[in-house]
Amino acid sequence: MIYLDHASATPVSKKVLERMLPYFSEKFFNPSAPYLSAKRVREDYESAKQTIANLVGAKGNDLVITSGATEANALAFTAVAPDNLETEQNLKNTLKSPKVLVLETEHASVLENAKKYAWDTIKVTKTGLIDLFDLKKKLSPEVELVSVSLANNELGTIQPLSEIAQILKEERLSRLKSGNPHQLLLHSDASQGLALLDINVSRLGVDLLTLNSAKISGPKGVGALYVGHGVRLNPLVLGGGQERNLRSGTENIPGVIGFAAACEQLKNPASLAKKYKKLSDILKSELENSKIPPFFLGDKKSKLSNFLPLCFPGLDAERIIYKLEEREIYLSTGAACAASKGKPSHVLRAIGLSPEEIAGSLRISLGVLNTEENVREAGKALVEVVNHECERISRS
Amino acid sequence: MIYLDHASATPVSKKVLERMLPYFSEKFFNPSAPYLSAKRVREDYESAKQTIANLVGAKGNDLVITSGATEANALAFTAVAPDNLETEQNLKNTLKSPKVLVLETEHASVLENAKKYAWDTIKVTKTGLIDLFDLKKKLSPEVELVSVSLANNELGTIQPLSEIAQILKEERLSRLKSGNPHQLLLHSDASQGLALLDINVSRLGVDLLTLNSAKISGPKGVGALYVGHGVRLNPLVLGGGQERNLRSGTENIPGVIGFAAACEQLKNPASLAKKYKKLSDILKSELENSKIPPFFLGDKKSKLSNFLPLCFPGLDAERIIYKLEEREIYLSTGAACAASKGKPSHVLRAIGLSPEEIAGSLRISLGVLNTEENVREAGKALVEVVNHECERISRS
Repeated sequence: MIYLDHASATPVSKKVLERMLPYFSEKFFNPSAPYLSAKRVREDYESAKQTIANLVGAKGNDLVITSGATEANALAFTAVAPDNLETEQNLKNTLKSPKVLVLETEHASVLENAKKYAWDTIKVTKTGLIDLFDLKKKLSPEVELVSVSLANNELGTIQPLSEIAQILKEERLSRLKSGNPHQLLLHSDASQGLALLDINVSRLGVDLLTLNSAKISGPKGVGALYVGHGVRLNPLVLGGGQERNLRSGTENIPGVIGFAAACEQLKNPASLAKKYKKLSDILKSELENSKIPPFFLGDKKSKLSNFLPLCFPGLDAERIIYKLEEREIYLSTGAACAASKGKPSHVLRAIGLSPEEIAGSLRISLGVLNTEENVREAGKALVEVVNHECERISRS
Repeated sequence: MIYLDHASATPVSKKVLERMLPYFSEKFFNPSAPYLSAKRVREDYESAKQTIANLVGAKGNDLVITSGATEANALAFTAVAPDNLETEQNLKNTLKSPKVLVLETEHASVLENAKKYAWDTIKVTKTGLIDLFDLKKKLSPEVELVSVSLANNELGTIQPLSEIAQILKEERLSRLKSGNPHQLLLHSDASQGLALLDINVSRLGVDLLTLNSAKISGPKGVGALYVGHGVRLNPLVLGGGQERNLRSGTENIPGVIGFAAACEQLKNPASLAKKYKKLSDILKSELENSKIPPFFLGDKKSKLSNFLPLCFPGLDAERIIYKLEEREIYLSTGAACAASKGKPSHVLRAIGLSPEEIAGSLRISLGVLNTEENVREAGKALVEVVNHECERISRS
């Protein structure tokens, strides 16, 4: 098997799993129980939260543990004042000023939550970068939340979050002067890029940050939301009052221990980036042998080093995927949850690709399972499949 | 260690963990990805859901997988028409007719969600059984949801769900005749008792049923909501559209595989009940040697066989717990999440216990880690601690 879809899922590393194992059957206690063995589990849990928080330069208590990034995104949106929650009727009232702004290329878990409110989208450039002029134009006095992912999940394009934070800071100052009482928060989904980028919340300038365990060789079913001081959330899941009343339910101890272990296992971002640059170069040089030259998507200067989104115009990417699957080479056309519905990618549409170009687009995302050898082999196989497809089309 | 707190948490069984393991690092694929290995994970996931559904006599598609019972309870309450969701202002309007009725002894995850709506509580008897007259009295024409747990998490009292379902059925018929358009749904949190009771949704007559993996030697961080045909929910977590759009987020594959394996491992309820009856009898006979005779809480005729809630009036249950902890014997005063806050149990208050009696109450819940030997040893230790406490008090 050659796996080229790390943006979709990653294998739990051996070391991570080893750290999780004792918490299934031995240290299985409910951390809220009153006896010592349970209290020790509570300590381990809080310590794991601190480890995760270290990654973003925060305290364990600034995190709300969730069942994954999607839930963290949903929770982030509850920061928008609840009395602004739109009823279906209000939603139809298109004259309403937007309360939330989201990048048009955001993941479904951001877009679908935005739709609960009066909302608008911020445009992106042809490389998937935020159009800062469009942000400024749309930053009307009623906007309470701006949500821009750290790096796009199909293109790998990295957004200039600190620049965005600066624009929001200026707007906050201007609101303060004019007596406008609306809050203005910056949320970012950092599901992609956790291993490769600086995600210090102060340097990024975010108020809310979504973290994902499953993309960094941690377990599925666990994520976290960093919540800046003074940000008020309206919890989605009420009950026993866990996570400072923001997310009730018995804690998923093995999940959080595993998430923390995955954070600890993260390699130096610069050396990782170097590795992926080399692997990408190998792939690209193999692809020079293809009869149709591919063009690469995303932003050359501001892109995750493990992402290689590309397009073979005129070819059918799904056919390519099936042909590679026969050789146990796995990659995808885009976000797994979106791709499974067979709809053309809203991300690729947003960057201005034609329907034909969208149909010919693939997402290669490198990761822990890749080596120079298997990437070279995958490149050769991709060229063979592409060239075969070219012949098939020219014959027909 | 002698563990007497199975209602709070259970160890994941070896067989369950073995079944989960391949899905962490080998079959780690995103089930929505387009290639064969991912599709196989999708098949395993759907098959696991079917196994869980078999337990309640339903189809896999009738279940929405959640991150646990608390989230399942929260999701169940979204069945109440969304335009009836109370704003803070409406909540203060006490004249509003109740939209939801919940038993006053429900778990916090039911009570806190009920509070989002105009709500009222149904009284219980001194043994914790639902007061059916009170239910009938409060079942006003606007009530849309009635939530009654299958078995109480502190007392083990089993509620007569099919009788409750019958009352609701009659009310539905009467609404149909009078042209009252309000729906009327029955929800039950079956977190406790999954291993011991008949939980066939048709026989119980429920529209919504909460299932919990962590109480039956399955992993933490996973649960399910059975959703009857025609019941409309308003998803809490939006995004990629997983779980028929009712619960987005990449599926927690190992969690669901483990939950299903735990369901398969469940023993014959009758033989389990026999085992717990014997163990309870051993404990009770040991307790006959205590200087203060305890009285037992809950309903003698309708009680989970593994529950032994009891009260030593005049003693301090928390001191008893700490003294037993020193001997590595673990039990609790009640629900872990509530107990950790140091508030007197609302359940014990509801059944009419005095503050002194509440302070002297313990919850023993038997399970997979108990044997005749360790239960006898625990009984002797409890008697020693109780007798020592009696002496201490009489001296002071």
